[in-house]
Parts: sequence; structure tokens; C-alpha cells
Amino acid sequence: MEVVILAAGKGTRMRSRRPKVLQPLAARPLLAHVLDTARALDAARICCVIGHDADAVRESLASPDLRWVEQHPQLGTGHAVQQALPELSDNTIVLVLYGDVPLTRRETLAALVDAAGAERLAMLTVTLDDPAGYGRIVRDAAGRVQRIVEHRDATAVEREIHEINTGILAAPAARLRQWLARVGNDNTQGEYYLTDIVALAVADGVEVVTAQPTDAWETLGVNDRRQLAALERIVQRNAADVLLDGGVTLADPARIDVRGTLECGQDVEIDIDCVFEGRVVLGDDVKVGAHCVLRDAVIGAGTRIAPFSHVESTTMGANCIIGPYARTRPGTVLADGVHLGNFVEVKNSQVGAGSKANHLAYVGDADVGAGVNIGAGVITCNYDGANKHRTIIEDEAFVGSDVQLVAPVRIGRGATIGAGTTLTRDAPEEQLTISRVKQTSVRWKRPKKKTP
Amino acid sequence: MEVVILAAGKGTRMRSRRPKVLQPLAARPLLAHVLDTARALDAARICCVIGHDADAVRESLASPDLRWVEQHPQLGTGHAVQQALPELSDNTIVLVLYGDVPLTRRETLAALVDAAGAERLAMLTVTLDDPAGYGRIVRDAAGRVQRIVEHRDATAVEREIHEINTGILAAPAARLRQWLARVGNDNTQGEYYLTDIVALAVADGVEVVTAQPTDAWETLGVNDRRQLAALERIVQRNAADVLLDGGVTLADPARIDVRGTLECGQDVEIDIDCVFEGRVVLGDDVKVGAHCVLRDAVIGAGTRIAPFSHVESTTMGANCIIGPYARTRPGTVLADGVHLGNFVEVKNSQVGAGSKANHLAYVGDADVGAGVNIGAGVITCNYDGANKHRTIIEDEAFVGSDVQLVAPVRIGRGATIGAGTTLTRDAPEEQLTISRVKQTSVRWKRPKKKTP
Amino acid sequence: MEVVILAAGKGTRMRSRRPKVLQPLAARPLLAHVLDTARALDAARICCVIGHDADAVRESLASPDLRWVEQHPQLGTGHAVQQALPELSDNTIVLVLYGDVPLTRRETLAALVDAAGAERLAMLTVTLDDPAGYGRIVRDAAGRVQRIVEHRDATAVEREIHEINTGILAAPAARLRQWLARVGNDNTQGEYYLTDIVALAVADGVEVVTAQPTDAWETLGVNDRRQLAALERIVQRNAADVLLDGGVTLADPARIDVRGTLECGQDVEIDIDCVFEGRVVLGDDVKVGAHCVLRDAVIGAGTRIAPFSHVESTTMGANCIIGPYARTRPGTVLADGVHLGNFVEVKNSQVGAGSKANHLAYVGDADVGAGVNIGAGVITCNYDGANKHRTIIEDEAFVGSDVQLVAPVRIGRGATIGAGTTLTRDAPEEQLTISRVKQTSVRWKRPKKKTP
Repeated sequence: MEVVILAAGKGTRMRSRRPKVLQPLAARPLLAHVLDTARALDAARICCVIGHDADAVRESLASPDLRWVEQHPQLGTGHAVQQALPELSDNTIVLVLYGDVPLTRRETLAALVDAAGAERLAMLTVTLDDPAGYGRIVRDAAGRVQRIVEHRDATAVEREIHEINTGILAAPAARLRQWLARVGNDNTQGEYYLTDIVALAVADGVEVVTAQPTDAWETLGVNDRRQLAALERIVQRNAADVLLDGGVTLADPARIDVRGTLECGQDVEIDIDCVFEGRVVLGDDVKVGAHCVLRDAVIGAGTRIAPFSHVESTTMGANCIIGPYARTRPGTVLADGVHLGNFVEVKNSQVGAGSKANHLAYVGDADVGAGVNIGAGVITCNYDGANKHRTIIEDEAFVGSDVQLVAPVRIGRGATIGAGTTLTRDAPEEQLTISRVKQTSVRWKRPKKKTP
Repeated sequence: MEVVILAAGKGTRMRSRRPKVLQPLAARPLLAHVLDTARALDAARICCVIGHDADAVRESLASPDLRWVEQHPQLGTGHAVQQALPELSDNTIVLVLYGDVPLTRRETLAALVDAAGAERLAMLTVTLDDPAGYGRIVRDAAGRVQRIVEHRDATAVEREIHEINTGILAAPAARLRQWLARVGNDNTQGEYYLTDIVALAVADGVEVVTAQPTDAWETLGVNDRRQLAALERIVQRNAADVLLDGGVTLADPARIDVRGTLECGQDVEIDIDCVFEGRVVLGDDVKVGAHCVLRDAVIGAGTRIAPFSHVESTTMGANCIIGPYARTRPGTVLADGVHLGNFVEVKNSQVGAGSKANHLAYVGDADVGAGVNIGAGVITCNYDGANKHRTIIEDEAFVGSDVQLVAPVRIGRGATIGAGTTLTRDAPEEQLTISRVKQTSVRWKRPKKKTP
Repeated sequence: MEVVILAAGKGTRMRSRRPKVLQPLAARPLLAHVLDTARALDAARICCVIGHDADAVRESLASPDLRWVEQHPQLGTGHAVQQALPELSDNTIVLVLYGDVPLTRRETLAALVDAAGAERLAMLTVTLDDPAGYGRIVRDAAGRVQRIVEHRDATAVEREIHEINTGILAAPAARLRQWLARVGNDNTQGEYYLTDIVALAVADGVEVVTAQPTDAWETLGVNDRRQLAALERIVQRNAADVLLDGGVTLADPARIDVRGTLECGQDVEIDIDCVFEGRVVLGDDVKVGAHCVLRDAVIGAGTRIAPFSHVESTTMGANCIIGPYARTRPGTVLADGVHLGNFVEVKNSQVGAGSKANHLAYVGDADVGAGVNIGAGVITCNYDGANKHRTIIEDEAFVGSDVQLVAPVRIGRGATIGAGTTLTRDAPEEQLTISRVKQTSVRWKRPKKKTP
């Protein structure tokens, strides 16, 4: 079995400079979803027919297993498939997919290909409550497909048909070649329609069979941003259901967004309005509070992330307490039992077991040992305006409030740094290091409000 | 055509001290929405009938194009319209609207007025799946409107009628005057009902015609907070659809709130749960992350606003990188390529091209040049307890971490301010300015946990 | 009337280590909801039948008014009720509830018990659009209940019945005892089914009556996390409706979570995506901005809480202005008119009337007087690595930016503390206290970017 994916359209109604098949759904291009499915079907070949902004599409999704064919000008779906035929084998079944119909299940398409067998034309159809606008499947008394009638050409009786054509089909390559050569363009648009092969198959006495998806949304296409947004919600609701079925507690399945993969251990709880991007792994008993954003993160068992936290490219150990309003940036590696509190930023730093930075701190380019206490307002001055330097804080150190650590600098094991110190040289182990001026008081009259 | 808007009711079920027509929908009073529509219809006169808390209503929405009539006591809708008649011309069509029915489209009402023509009574009706509780439109065999029957008075057969009265109508002023003079109050409430004119029109041989809105929600009224909340969601969903149709990517059309106007360039992306208030303009390719709040903001092309940002009365140039957790307050003007990072507040300040304040800073009442680096924890001490003073930071300056800028103060071009400095006097160009104490270390025993 | 609650099941499909009846709904165990209802019915006795992880269930919900019976092994619902019978009186009506059916209204159950009277078997039934999978209520021509037929055993005609069995029932204890003794386990599962008593009652000539709930969701049970999430949304939507009916403005009733009790004064406004936990009281005219989290808080009239605020175990006076991004932690008590701004944390502190901390500050273990101004970046150094100490700031003091208050320390009334000061000893009243180094400038070449 070989796959042709039609992906040449511009998607004018998207009102975008980006070609339609590159519009993101769950953070990946529409076409990438279709390619995933084609690969999951073990297609011997996958051929994408591209046209509008062909270079951008090809570059975005380049892969050695794909063949690219350009369609210029774009004269309809039949014409598009015809461009792909030279790339395909003769003795194969061709499955035609669409770059803007991203959610068809692998199982649905496998059943369609099975239905085609070696000699039949198999169409994916779907039964809609409201079929208005779609091509209807006209069957004879015995239930055999006779033809597709477009909505505008349908009689009143035909418009009562609720089974509609999705455009997705599978057919023997040799037959497809013959039929497409006979398809004409004698219609208002002057285009060659792939659906015209149905009538040709019937005329040739080839059996036309149908398969249906489990869910109607599998056949939804994207022509405008409303449809794209609707599909996004379907993808997200499906992702939520997978999480729920796996035992995750979601405060609201309509208010979680997973744009990538989210793997969860047992008894994970996710509060409202969280966003997960890239690959996120949550260990057993992890709790993610409301309004958190996590991207590319591995979170150890029992760790609690309080609301408004923003975690990116971070590894956290077990039983950490994070946030609210904690932000970890790429390169953050936290050992077990680390506490990061409100308004704390950590970047490109390792933090040892049980260490704490609970308030208003910036820890960047630092190696922090175990059992360290980083006071409120502590800042690693890691950037001198040109280069970044590292700060090393050894185990059991206590860094007082508002201390500036002018990197490169090292704080020895068990050292204490007095509040307000500007640390420009290394601080010895177990000693108190301080830069402090004597406090003085003077009589002084506070300014009065100027009256304008 | 002239408009009467009935806006005298208290709205007891709102359980508010505010009169009902001042309750906000998409951040504007219900009555303001109706006034917008009346103005869009080019009404020659607009007369509001007010009663409950009349002064508050009049003051909230005062405008020279409006006439205000008070209704005391409030003896029903017919009585209300009657109060307005002295303010209206004789040779005109009168359109009756309601201050608590805010979403009727201009086109719907224009069609209603057209249907009235010079001599007919035109009623806006709507067909509901569940008409229970509403007055039904009773027609004769020829389809001509005969009368309105209230739900409680309707026979079983009449209750099967799904076309209901919305109360909105248009009629020739002279006729309206005659009919209202004849409307009685012989009913349980002892009120004069406007709908009674329908029977009078029929009796007079005046043709009664109907028009229907495109969407049933156009005729929804607000009597309680559930209804108000339902209308809010309709307004917001409509606003989302307008954005989508214009080419904006919305992560979830059910999770965006626009309370004012939102103008977007091409390929704008808005993540979940954002709130836009006042007038917001987003340039091409702007991305607004999850959970942002923007009020009265103009954002340049290509700027990215990360999650949890709060932007108010701010102008940003192109290609800025803002947040997460950045807050800009009124008077913030950012040039192109400015970076504001986490836990940074900017107020009443200009920031030049390419300048950065990436962590934990407060920039208030400052003029910041181009290419400036404002370190973590930097604070403009703009307030002396009585007055505000300005801080000036010239191009290419580097302000080290935790520096306090005691305004008024100026940092010269290319100057560097050492970490932890309290800057009380101007810092010269290209020099390093610092206030620092020598760091010392002493043997010292850290306190032990007191055991109680 | 006495109540038996069946709560022995494991809930395998929850995929949790926690027994099903302890899974939280609106932050309380499912079983706790059922217990609330049983208590509201003034049951003379409440007996819970537990089994899976019995100790955990008993400990979680221990109360002197409850009797606990263990069911080992678990041989069906009939068997479960039988275990409870020894704990119940003879001359009583027994109401059988389920620990995983949490939302049945008290009124519904009271009506069911009334229907049972002294001698009848009363079943709670519900009419569903889609009854597939449920046991149908089979009635004779006169409408008398004959039996329950399980879905799998139902004929095509019986499957058309939309009235289904909820399992909830009330019956005289003595009858129940007799019937249960006669229930067999001759079925695929080898279990004793409580529903089998219906046929026995009919056979005995005991009248079987039914009651129905007002809403179908009252009878929904929880077998998996999808169902739990669906019930959570029902609970939350109901809570939203109660708030709306009480006169609260909700920006979106689908985006508020109340996990506890939320009491609101008049004209309270709550923006999107707020979460309320524990007991929260909002005074008249309080406004809560988007994305706030409040837990155990009492907020005075007129106070405004801006977006992204996190309030926990806090009391606020009237007309405070809080946030955005303000965090108050347990033990925070704010007097009237206090302002807390962005990135400010307050913990275990009292703040007097009209005092302000508007930017980037940590106020912990402090007693702050009235009219105090706490500058940006001010930090109470309340923790010396071992013990916490208090900071006292008297009325009208002005604490400059970036000041560190090394506790224990006291700032006298009207004192001013200069920016950047490390305050280690008490600051006298009305004086300026400062620790400051003279600012110096030197020629200095800023480092250049290293080229690797």
C-alpha cells in the first residue's frame, strides 16, 4: 500500500502567509499529523503533492521516507493525484489522504484499505446529521454505491441522503491510472475531480465499497481558522480523555492543553488551565496547580508545582515544592526535595537535594549544593555585559537576603553570607562573609509633597 | 425613523444596587449596546425612558443626541412608550427597543423598520424550540398575525406555537399614539402592555407584519445574572469568531475575553485564557502567551508576550520579547527589540531599542536609552515619600544587579554601575561607578534552632 | 429512617492507589458528599459498608455518628446491605445510598423515603434519553413496577424503556431483612444483587413505588476519571449558578472553581479562571481579577484583587488594592486600604491601615503600622538559618528601596530608612537611618565578548 497526500492548496480562508498544511494543530503542522498516520499504516511509499509555497512545506517536513511532487498549476484533486502516479508502484493499493484532514485514525484507514482489497475502489464515507454542502453517496436498491452527487446538483430526494463523501479513498494503482486519464474538467471550476472516478469505476463494473470512521471528527478538514480551532479542541479533548483513562485527575478536561506528549505516573493531579508543551513526564503523585505552563520537563514523584509556575527544559527530583510563580528555564536540574518559592527564577543551574530559594531570587549559571539556603532577593550576577560566569555554592551554605554573587565566585561549604553583601571574591567554608557599612541615624526632614 | 428605548426597570433579580441597564456586558452597560445599535440605524431621534435610579443612568450615558424621559410610576411597557411620545415627531416610524435586550443586530432592526414601511405594525418575532413562558404569535389560516396570546392565557393548541413575541416593534408614530391611548390596564398586574396594540392594529385593519433575526440570541433579554453571563459568553464567542475569520489563531475560542476592541495584523496567535480590555492593537505575527491580560495597548509586529504578562496603557515596538510575568503599567513606551523578563515592572518610562531588563526589576519614571542592560534586582527609587523623580539612563549603559537608582539621577552613556550600588549622584559616561564595601570573613557560629 | 451507604468497592477503573470513595470531588471525598446528604436527612443511624482499603476510608471520615461495617469478601450489593443489617433497627425505613453517587439532593431522597412510607419498597428511578446499559423499570399496564430487567437480559421491546434503576432505594428494615435472606447468587458474577429484592417484593404483594430526581445528574455514579471529571463540572456549574442567583457577576460561569464555601456580599465581581478553596468570604463590591487563587480568606468590602494574585489564610480589610501578582500567605492580616503590588509576598504579618508595599518585596513575620511605605525590593530577613524573628515597623515609617531588615529589628514611628540599607539595629523615630558607602567612579573597560 502506498499513500498520496494532497497538500498543494493555499488555504486562502486562513488569511495567513503560511501555507495551510503548515498551520499548527496541537503545535504540529496539519500535514505532520497526516504523515504520522501514513507512517503508522506502514505505507511502502508516501508521496506528498505540494504546490502553494512548496519549498516551505518540503523544508518543514523534510524526511528521507517522503517523495515530493509539485502540482503547477493546481487543476483539481484528480489532477493532483495524477501528478503523484509516476512516483508510485503499479501493483499496489493507493490510499489518497489530504494534508488538511489531520485526525483520521490509523484503524479507520487500515479498514478502508482492507475494504479495497486488490480490486475494489473503497471510499471513506460518513453519516452526518446535517449533510448540507457535502457530496452525497447515492446507492441502488441493493445498497451498492452508484455515484456521488454534489450538493448543488442533488435533487430534493438526494439531499435527504445523510451519508457523504469524505474524499479519502483507496484503489488499485493501475485502475486509478486508467480512471484519472479519463476524468474530464467539464465543470464550472474547470477542474479535474478525483471523485469522478467513482462513476468510472461503476461503469467499469468495479465494485465500489465504503468504510466509515468511528467518529465523524476523523474526517473533518480545515479550511478556515474556525475549523482549525474546532479541531484543536477535539485533539485536546481526546488527549484529556487519554489522561483520564490512564488515571490522571483533571480538574477540567476542557481546560488542559497538551501540545506534545504528556506521560503521567499514578495519581497525578492537574488543576485547571495548565499547558504542556514538548515532552513532559510527571512522576507518581505529582500535583500541578492551576495556570501552570510546562515545556520539556521531567518531574519526580511527589513533587508539587503551585499555581502560576512556568517550567521549561527542566529536570526535577522527587518531592520538590515549586512555586507559586516559580520559573525554571532551560538547563535547570533540581535534586530531590528542592524548594523554589515565589518570584524565583532558575536558569542553567543545578540545585542539590533539599536546597531552598523561597523568595524573589535569580539563580543563573550556578552549581548549588545540598542543604543550601538562598535568601530572599539573592541574585547571581552571572553576566558582566559580555560573558556569562558560574557561581558555585557548596553544601549547607546560607546566603543572606539581597546578596549579590558576582560570578565567577565560590561559596564554601557551610559558609554564611550576610544580608546585603556584594560577594566579589570566594567566601571561605564555615565562616561568615560580609560587606557591610555601619548603620547611622541622622535628624532629617522627609520631603513634602510639592504642590503644583 | 425614531427610537424609543425602555430602560426604566430596576432589575430586582440582578440583586444589585446598580440599575439593570447599567450592568456591564463586555465591560459596557447593557444600555450602551442598545444605543450603539440605535445610532447605527441613523435614528433621527433616540429617546430613553428611564425610571429606576434615573440619574445614574442619565449620567452614565449622557450624550447630546439622546432625549431622556422619566417614567414615574412604572405602569407597564405601553405606559413607558406613551411617556416618550411627546418627544417624538408625528410623521415618523417609531422603533421600540429595550435597554436590557442588548444584542439585536442593526441589520435585523433595519429589516423590521423596512417591514413596517409607512403604515404597518411590524413585530420582531423569533421561533424557539422551547417557547414556554413567552407570548405566542397567533396567525390566521392565511398566515396573518391576529394577536399575541400570553403563555398563561394560551390554550393547549396555542402553546404548540413556537413563534414568540420579542417585544421589539416598529409602528407609525401617529398610529402608536392612537393605540396607546386605547390600551387599558385591566389585568392582574394593573399595567398597560405595549403588546396590546397588536390587537388594536388588527381591529383597525392595519396590517401586522413580522421580521425575524438571523440568530435567536439577538432577542435575548437580561433579567438575572445567569442570563447576563449567558449573553457575555455569546458576545465573547462572536468576538472570537470575528477574530478567527480575520485570520487570528486562537488556541481556544471559548477562552478569550475581549472587552473593547482588539485589532490584529496577520498571523497573530493568541493562547488560552487571555483578556483584552479597552483598545488593543496587535501587529503582524504577534504572539500572546497563555494567561495574559492586555488593556489599552499597541504592540508592534513580531513581538512575543510570554504567559502571565500584564500590559496596561503601553506601546511596544516590533520584535520585543516580553515576560513571562512582565508587567507594564501606564505610560510605558518600549522601542523595538526591548526585552522585559520575569518579575519586571515598568511604569511611566521610555525604553530604547534593544534594551533589556530581564529579571526582578522596577523601572519607574525613567528614560532608558538604547542598548541598555538593566540587571536583575535593579530598582528606580522614584518616590521619596512625597514626590516622584525621574531616572535617566543613557545608551549602552550597564546597570549591575541590585543597584538602586535614587532619582533624580542620570547614568551617562556607556557607563557601568557595579552590582549593589546605591546611586545617589549622576554616573559619568563610560566609567564604572560603584559604592562598595570591602568583603570580610570572620569565624562565626550560625544560630541553632531553638527548641521550645 | 436509617441509612446504609455502600462504600466497599475498589474502583479499579480509577487506576488509583486511593479507594474510590475517597477520590475528591470539589476537594472533598465522594463519600463525604453522601454523608452530608445522609446527615441532612436526619437519619437516626448512618452505617457505611466498607471493604477495599477499609482503614483508610474509616480514618478519613471518622465521626462518632457513623457506624462502620466491613464487607469481606465483596459478594455484591445485596450482600453488602446484609452486612449492615445487624447495625440497624428493626422498625425503621432503610435508605440505601452509594458512596460513589455523591450528588443526590436531600429533597429527592426525602421524597423517596416518603414514598416508601412504612410498608412500601421505594426505588429512585430516572428517565434517560439514552438508557443503554442500565437496568430498565418494567411496569404493568396499570403502571405498577413489576421488575427490573438488566440491559443484557432485556428484550428489544424492554430496551425501548427509558426509565432506569439508579440502585438507590428505601424499604422497611424488616422486609429488607427477609428479602435479602432470599436473594441468590445464581448469575454470571456469582453475586448477590440488591435489585433482586424488587421481584421478591412484587411476589410478596408489597407495593413498589418510585420517585424521580429533579435532575438526572443527581443519580450519576463515578466509576472512572472521566465520570469524576464530569461530576466535578456539574458541581462547579451548580456552584456558579448559586453565586449568580445571589447576585454575583461571573465573567464565565464555566470558568470558576469553588472547592469549599464562597460567601459573597452585594455586587461582587469575579473574573475568569479563579479558584476558591476552603472558606472564602468576599465583602460587598469586592472585585477579583482574572486567574486568582484564594484559599481560606476573608476580604473586606470594596477591596480589589488584581489578576494573578494568590491569597491564602488571609484577612483583608476594606478597600485594599492587591496585586497583580501579589501573594499573601498564612497569617496575613491587612487593615483597611492596604496596597500590595506586583511580586510582593506577605507572610504571618499584620499590616496597618493605608500602608503600601507596591513592588518586589518580602514582608514576613512583621508587624507593620499604619501609613507605612515599604519600598521596592525591601526584604525582611526573618530567618537566620535556624529561627524566625519579628520585624516591627511603626506608623508612618518610610522604608527605602532594597532595604534589608535583619530581624529582630524595630523601625520607629515616622523613621526613614535610606535605600539599600542593611538594618541590623533598631532605627529611631523620625530620623533617617542609613548604611551607605560613598559612590566613586573609575575609568574602566567593560569586558568584551569572548570569542570561543
